Amino acid sequence: MSRWKPDAEGRLIKAAITLFDAQGYDATTVAEITAAAGLTKRTFFRYFADKREVLFSGAHELQDRWLGGIEAAPAGASPMSAVSAGLDGVIDLLAGRHPFARMRSRIIAANPELQERELIKLQSLASAITAALVQRGQPVNAATLAAQSGVTVFHVAFARWVDQDDPAAFRRLTDESLQELRSVVAA
Amino acid sequence: MSRWKPDAEGRLIKAAITLFDAQGYDATTVAEITAAAGLTKRTFFRYFADKREVLFSGAHELQDRWLGGIEAAPAGASPMSAVSAGLDGVIDLLAGRHPFARMRSRIIAANPELQERELIKLQSLASAITAALVQRGQPVNAATLAAQSGVTVFHVAFARWVDQDDPAAFRRLTDESLQELRSVVAA
Repeated sequence: MSRWKPDAEGRLIKAAITLFDAQGYDATTVAEITAAAGLTKRTFFRYFADKREVLFSGAHELQDRWLGGIEAAPAGASPMSAVSAGLDGVIDLLAGRHPFARMRSRIIAANPELQERELIKLQSLASAITAALVQRGQPVNAATLAAQSGVTVFHVAFARWVDQDDPAAFRRLTDESLQELRSVVAA
Repeated sequence: MSRWKPDAEGRLIKAAITLFDAQGYDATTVAEITAAAGLTKRTFFRYFADKREVLFSGAHELQDRWLGGIEAAPAGASPMSAVSAGLDGVIDLLAGRHPFARMRSRIIAANPELQERELIKLQSLASAITAALVQRGQPVNAATLAAQSGVTVFHVAFARWVDQDDPAAFRRLTDESLQELRSVVAA
């Protein structure tokens, strides 16, 4: 085992997700995760406050990507176009992570405490998107409605994406979900 | 003080909300709540697991009302019409509780832990609405999108309702929010 370990964070995430999925989240210890990754507990706690945070450490990156897309949208874009531009960036980010996303969804679905955490993260994402739209001069109601709709479309499309086998289908599923949201609220 | 105390639950809620709002949620004890209501701690714990649950005990009634409205909607109603029918019942339920709702919103807005709890309750409401729509034969995606949209409209309209002085405005604010959601997602 070499002393220099590149991408310690990525290896810890991969080891944790694999163990959580194989033997259960509650049954897995930090010691097992670090052993599987060939790293120390000290290294683990440099990246994560606890084992739960391994599952949610990607939320920050996802949010940055989404907000970056909103920021880069043309000044005159409607709130929903800006939200969709942000979501486009998220789709690019997640495209290569289909097997990981699928395992992670399974782990979270099996644990009510993790489901609560996931919902809170999604709502915190919606709040950040609302704030970014208000920053662009949108009224707070339109901003809130567009942000919540964007997060709902993402959530529905994501569930469909991990539930099927084609990693490239995420964009199509997102477009379909947005289209379906339009029909549903219009009816 | 008479031994027979009608509506102990309602009096405990009223006393708790008033104290939380006046002196802060964290600073208020169950002993203070029961003293203000003229009741015992034993009575308190017959109704509530802890002081936090006083703020969320109405969620069950709200959800029952919403699901009852969905159940009573015509068989051929679109998912969004069924969701709106449920929301109509909720508006009737809350109509007389404007001062209470306003204090409660203020208490929750001041405390991140209560905000998390509120979001989880709203998401649990959205899940129950989704299940009720699926029960009526709606596909799960349309059901999820309609349920989330309904809860978003409710949440936005509720925030506007407690932020202004007319208790009778809730229905109008709900209609406006749904109309605005339609424009936002169509744009």
